[in-house]
Amino acid sequence: MISEHRYRRRVQFAETDLAGVVHFSWYYRYAEEAEHAMWRAAGLSIAPPGEVGWPRVSASFEFHEPLRFEDEFEVLVRVTAVTDKTIRYAVVVTRGETTIATGSHTAICVSKRPGEPMRAISIPPDIAARLKVASPSA
Amino acid sequence: MISEHRYRRRVQFAETDLAGVVHFSWYYRYAEEAEHAMWRAAGLSIAPPGEVGWPRVSASFEFHEPLRFEDEFEVLVRVTAVTDKTIRYAVVVTRGETTIATGSHTAICVSKRPGEPMRAISIPPDIAARLKVASPSA
Amino acid sequence: MISEHRYRRRVQFAETDLAGVVHFSWYYRYAEEAEHAMWRAAGLSIAPPGEVGWPRVSASFEFHEPLRFEDEFEVLVRVTAVTDKTIRYAVVVTRGETTIATGSHTAICVSKRPGEPMRAISIPPDIAARLKVASPSA
Amino acid sequence: MISEHRYRRRVQFAETDLAGVVHFSWYYRYAEEAEHAMWRAAGLSIAPPGEVGWPRVSASFEFHEPLRFEDEFEVLVRVTAVTDKTIRYAVVVTRGETTIATGSHTAICVSKRPGEPMRAISIPPDIAARLKVASPSA
Repeated sequence: MISEHRYRRRVQFAETDLAGVVHFSWYYRYAEEAEHAMWRAAGLSIAPPGEVGWPRVSASFEFHEPLRFEDEFEVLVRVTAVTDKTIRYAVVVTRGETTIATGSHTAICVSKRPGEPMRAISIPPDIAARLKVASPSA
Repeated sequence: MISEHRYRRRVQFAETDLAGVVHFSWYYRYAEEAEHAMWRAAGLSIAPPGEVGWPRVSASFEFHEPLRFEDEFEVLVRVTAVTDKTIRYAVVVTRGETTIATGSHTAICVSKRPGEPMRAISIPPDIAARLKVASPSA
Repeated sequence: MISEHRYRRRVQFAETDLAGVVHFSWYYRYAEEAEHAMWRAAGLSIAPPGEVGWPRVSASFEFHEPLRFEDEFEVLVRVTAVTDKTIRYAVVVTRGETTIATGSHTAICVSKRPGEPMRAISIPPDIAARLKVASPSA
Repeated sequence: MISEHRYRRRVQFAETDLAGVVHFSWYYRYAEEAEHAMWRAAGLSIAPPGEVGWPRVSASFEFHEPLRFEDEFEVLVRVTAVTDKTIRYAVVVTRGETTIATGSHTAICVSKRPGEPMRAISIPPDIAARLKVASPSA
């Protein structure tokens, strides 16, 4: 079982904007990359062939310091809540000792059969068995 | 003076993901496009040549329904708070009568002189004079 | 029948990079947006529900002048060749009288049944009937 | 001196589109990421503080096979020509033994002083000294 994951990344040129820093929309992708890396570390894939998907219910970030081109940074993603149908993650982006951004993202498990609307479903047991809530003090 | 703006848009192919819907990171860009369109409608530009910038302090969305390729949708952006240095916006994304996503974004006014770190500054009077808080009932 | 289309667009903030201009990768998306707008003008959709898709076989651009934030520009897309399975487009991006970029893109018609690899197929007659090669002098 | 570089990468979720494969615009970013990694391996940065920039003059790709979510792939970038003001790169994207895409990209050295238009300049000697044309047989 896994409850958190550290994901390392470097800022790429196309992620910057005319202000010379990473465009804020990229942090949501960084968070998702880290989350999917955590799933792989747990032996899972967020997008296996089949009928289960994980759209976002909500995603927020507070931005404290900018990232710049070629900066190396780390995304720490932690499972903070698991319900019957949803998983909540806390995300902290850091560059060395500097906190860059902090966020909270919630994904919901859905059935996505071709031609039908998405419908929230219970998290499959084999997934629930591999992800657990991080201890608050971690 | 302006306090809200309606921005129309169509979903483009590159904005979809393998789940067949718009990737959630795009909503933050849609919101920003609407905000910048509001500034233009107020006779302003968010990025004039010079030393003032508007990085995000925070940005959140709750996602209710998906958007799909070629959907036409509307982004309603409203000014909900103005402080000495910050502007907060509420954002509602709709497709016809359907509410797709609702969000809250806050930008901060900074001085960005080359070679110096960004520093929060008071909103210039000519900008503050053109944006006002929307009435709650609007 | 349609053989060309003019698509108008404004540069958005997230499309710029730290050099202060539009990142070159966006031109390929601008071209695709224009192509899909042409299909809509012809009463078609590039991505109808079903088993036919249009991946790129090749895409090239030459870049002459930069685009900047809030620039308004036009993308002229023209059908330059249609074969049994492929369509070639010429693309010209202009801002007023200035030529910004010129490109050539080729898409191929494929069958994409779930669980099978993509396979090139003949262009369906109802699509071929609506797109025709532009006259060279146009 | 360096003449080529191998860059490894994994497909991220936001890089896919509704066809279930990587959207073609991403290959141009993959190529740029590999090019910048080669510059770092040569002890250089493509975007140092200062007045020199490297916009694209042209960029083309031919696409042979698709990439899918979580695929691991390699980008081989090679210097194929250096002139007074330009550098040309050949790019090959592979997944294992499969060739995914092949491209050719040319960048030009420019002076970008604030308030002035970009102007092509000779490649600075300290950069030219570190990049050399790959041997054809490599």
